[in-house]
Order: sequence, then structure tokens, then C-alpha cells
Amino acid sequence: MIRAALHNGVAITDPSRAVSIDDRGFNYGDGLFETTLLRAGSIRFLDTHLQRLRSGAERLGIEVPSALEADIANLSASCGDGVLKIVITRGPGGRGYRPSPGAPVNRILSVHPLPATGESSGLTLRWCEMRLSRNAALAGMKHLNRLEQVMAQNEWHDPGIDEGLVCDTEGELVSATASNVFIVRNGALQTPDLRFSGVRGVMRSQVLRVAAELGIPCTEEPLWPHDLEEANEVFLTNAVRGIRPVAELQERRWQTFPMSSRLSQALKL
Amino acid sequence: MIRAALHNGVAITDPSRAVSIDDRGFNYGDGLFETTLLRAGSIRFLDTHLQRLRSGAERLGIEVPSALEADIANLSASCGDGVLKIVITRGPGGRGYRPSPGAPVNRILSVHPLPATGESSGLTLRWCEMRLSRNAALAGMKHLNRLEQVMAQNEWHDPGIDEGLVCDTEGELVSATASNVFIVRNGALQTPDLRFSGVRGVMRSQVLRVAAELGIPCTEEPLWPHDLEEANEVFLTNAVRGIRPVAELQERRWQTFPMSSRLSQALKL
Repeated sequence: MIRAALHNGVAITDPSRAVSIDDRGFNYGDGLFETTLLRAGSIRFLDTHLQRLRSGAERLGIEVPSALEADIANLSASCGDGVLKIVITRGPGGRGYRPSPGAPVNRILSVHPLPATGESSGLTLRWCEMRLSRNAALAGMKHLNRLEQVMAQNEWHDPGIDEGLVCDTEGELVSATASNVFIVRNGALQTPDLRFSGVRGVMRSQVLRVAAELGIPCTEEPLWPHDLEEANEVFLTNAVRGIRPVAELQERRWQTFPMSSRLSQALKL
Repeated sequence: MIRAALHNGVAITDPSRAVSIDDRGFNYGDGLFETTLLRAGSIRFLDTHLQRLRSGAERLGIEVPSALEADIANLSASCGDGVLKIVITRGPGGRGYRPSPGAPVNRILSVHPLPATGESSGLTLRWCEMRLSRNAALAGMKHLNRLEQVMAQNEWHDPGIDEGLVCDTEGELVSATASNVFIVRNGALQTPDLRFSGVRGVMRSQVLRVAAELGIPCTEEPLWPHDLEEANEVFLTNAVRGIRPVAELQERRWQTFPMSSRLSQALKL
């Protein structure tokens, strides 16, 4: 499944023996990741990915290695198309939660096949029972503590369901399990503000940017399940999969997706 | 630092190349761990550790490998004294949060040096600013999503501070960063009920058990910082470090620790 990989700049020859037993990513999820779309040797929205990675690293007190961009360029050039995943962790550590000052940050990059596509008629969604916890200190980052998303995706095995929507522990809408969510009402866009939970997605920030350029009103604010059910149009965003309109959520149906099409065109997805 | 280690029953010869790049523990913190005290070749309270591991694994839908107990016995016998850490993860996976059904669970065991001791006069504590998120679906388990604890321990570097107390996002007392907390008031014990956050510690459950045997009233209930500050005695519990009385928390001082001594004696710590 893994087509090529680098560990601190060195090719990983045996992916089954790559990560140190004392790596703090493995022991505590003490790190960050990015999942990027690699097309013809270059990463779509690379600057936005790096910006989010740096922002998360600053909040966690992890220094992004200066060699990371060269690693990305090397691996991208040799792989053509695929999904390039970047993981950085707070490096090695002893037993115990406290970080060791000055430990070298680990960087692990890998290239995976593109996901299957084919839901051009719109996604079928469900509501997940799993709730996301609230913690402003971790909200927005793409850190490695992802058990809640794992549990949410493990709730359903019906291949007819494309994604699951998740609320936080207070019932506020956050996102889908691996995508952000936007709703359209009266020509305006709304998306959850993610002040307590969720990941500030790269495609989400591209949509916010292009909506502003196109003069489409767009707000980040607290939203609830009923806001979504009352929307004229709903779409999910994800750095690899782009903008995907929603056709079905339980009893609710949507049949036309003019905003999704307009934004996808504007972003040349 | 690591004295010996096993990966799925096989000795790890190079700890820096041990874990697979697609291990779900590394990618998502999708697993559990136990930190145990190894003395003269056997693990203190092993049954309680295994019970908690099995309970967490059942909640996450991970099957505890039947070979785990043999691994523990082999490593314990060869190492004498130390801290034996057990990690199980949901095994390998593709890119994406959804678990692959039937993937083999990974088990990684390692033996580390015993921690330094020497705060026999009682611990000095601080309050952490980092809050723990609330999520009943994950509360109590010793899972691998530990960024909150990492951030909390990273708040202070004063070697005169032994541990930090943490509250949840609503301000309720949960625990210390790597220990549970008990308070004594009028001869009775109280400890946070951990219904939303925290880890149900092995030493905590031993204290609850022995208190019942000794006829000491003991309740698990919601507690707040003022409950702790008003207590006659406070102590922390941890599977490796045992029962440790608290001498100092900001302006508050405690000078005698009769309950801590009585419980330590009863548990033969």
C-alpha cells in the first residue's frame, strides 16, 4: 500500500520496522500530521498545509524541522501522483509524559495510492453517535490524538454510507469524521467555527478564501444539526477529495448543488 | 534507557527500528497501555493491570492477544526489577481512520529503569492551566491519546514541583498529570469519579478495595479544587510510585499523613 517513504530524510526500506519504540508519536500521539494530494509531482495547496503544520507545531511547542520541505520536494518528485502523508512527532523520549528539551523532532513521510472516487451524484451521510470532546487548547490542530475519529468511523460498515457527521459533547455540529462541513442558506455559506473541537481543514480554508474573493457571504459560527437539516445545500471539504456535495442525510434529500459546483470551478479542483 | 523489549513476542534488537509506519498506535493513538512495577521478576497487581487493559480493549473493540500474558511472563522473568510498559495497538491499517477488520493487534513490551525516589516528606504540587476534555466514551481508559497530559506536564520545569493537578474543561478536579488523587475529610476518603475524564488507575482501585476491607468510608464523586484545599490530607496514587502524600499546594501545607501511611501499610507498598 505504501509506495515510498522517508524517515528523517532517509528512504524507509522496511516500513514494518521504521518507527522508534520511544517515539512520542507512538507513545502519546504527541505530534501532528498532514494528508496532501500529490499530482504530477507537486502538492496541491502545499503552502496552506505547511502553514497549518507550523501553526499546530507552535501551539504544541514542537519545532518544524528545517529539512522537512526538502524531504517533501524529494518524495514528491519521485512519486508523481498519490496521497502524500506527513507526520512530525516530538521525537524520542523517556518513559513519562514530559517532553525532553531539545530532542530532535521526527519526520516521517509516505506516499499512498489515491482514494477511489465515484460518488459524483452526491454523498450519503449519517449522524455518528460518537461525540467529540471540547478543548480549546487542542481545537483546530491536526494532531495525532484521533481515537474519537476512529471510533466514529467504526460505527458503520454499510458501504452505501460515504461519511458520518459528528457533534461535540454539547451537541454542536463540528464536522464529518474526516472532512469539514459547509451549509448554504439563501446564497450564503456557514461552517462551524471549531473553537472547541475539530480540525481546521486545508480545503476549508481554501473555500473561505475563494468565497471572499467571489463576494459570497461566509461566516464561521456555532451550528447545530437542525441548521444543517434546514440548509438549501450541504457540502464536505477535504484536502484530498476536494468539495463533495451531500445528496442524502437520513430522510433529507438534496438534488442540486450549484454552490459546490461554483466553488469547485473557482478552485480548479 | 530501554533494558529489553518484545514486539509481538520477538526480542527487539534495534529499538529505533521497531514499530511499523502503518501502525495505528503511531498514526492515531489507536491503542492502550499499562505501566507496571516489576519487582524480583513479577509484576505488582498484574491482575488489576490486565483487567483494566481488557476493559479498555473491549470498549475500543480491540482484542487483547492471547499471547500477551506469555510475553509478560517471559520479559518479567528475564529482567528482575524495573518498570514494565505494555502497549497494544489496533495493528496495521491503511490511510484513514476506519479500522481494518481482522487486522492483527500489535503488542510491544519494554522494560525501563525504576524512577528516582526521595520525596518521603511529601509532594509539592501545582495547579496546571491545561484542562482535560470531557468525553464519557473515552473516560477511564489508559488509551494512547495523551496530548493533554503531555501539555500539562510541559507547563512547569521547576524541579521543586513534583506533580501537577488537572481539572476538566468545566473546572472539576480530575487527577494529577500521571496519578490519581484522593482527599481525606473527617476520616473518610473521596476521589473524583472520572465519569468524563481521567484514567482509572490500578493503584486507585487497590486503594478503593483496601479501604472497603478496612471499613474506611470511601466515595467516588464529583470534586472541585476547593474540596482538595479544604481536605485534612491529600495523596496521589500511581501503579509504579504507590501512595504519595501531598505536603504542599501553593499556599496550603499538610504536615501529617496518617491515612496515607495506613493504606500503604495495608497494601504492603
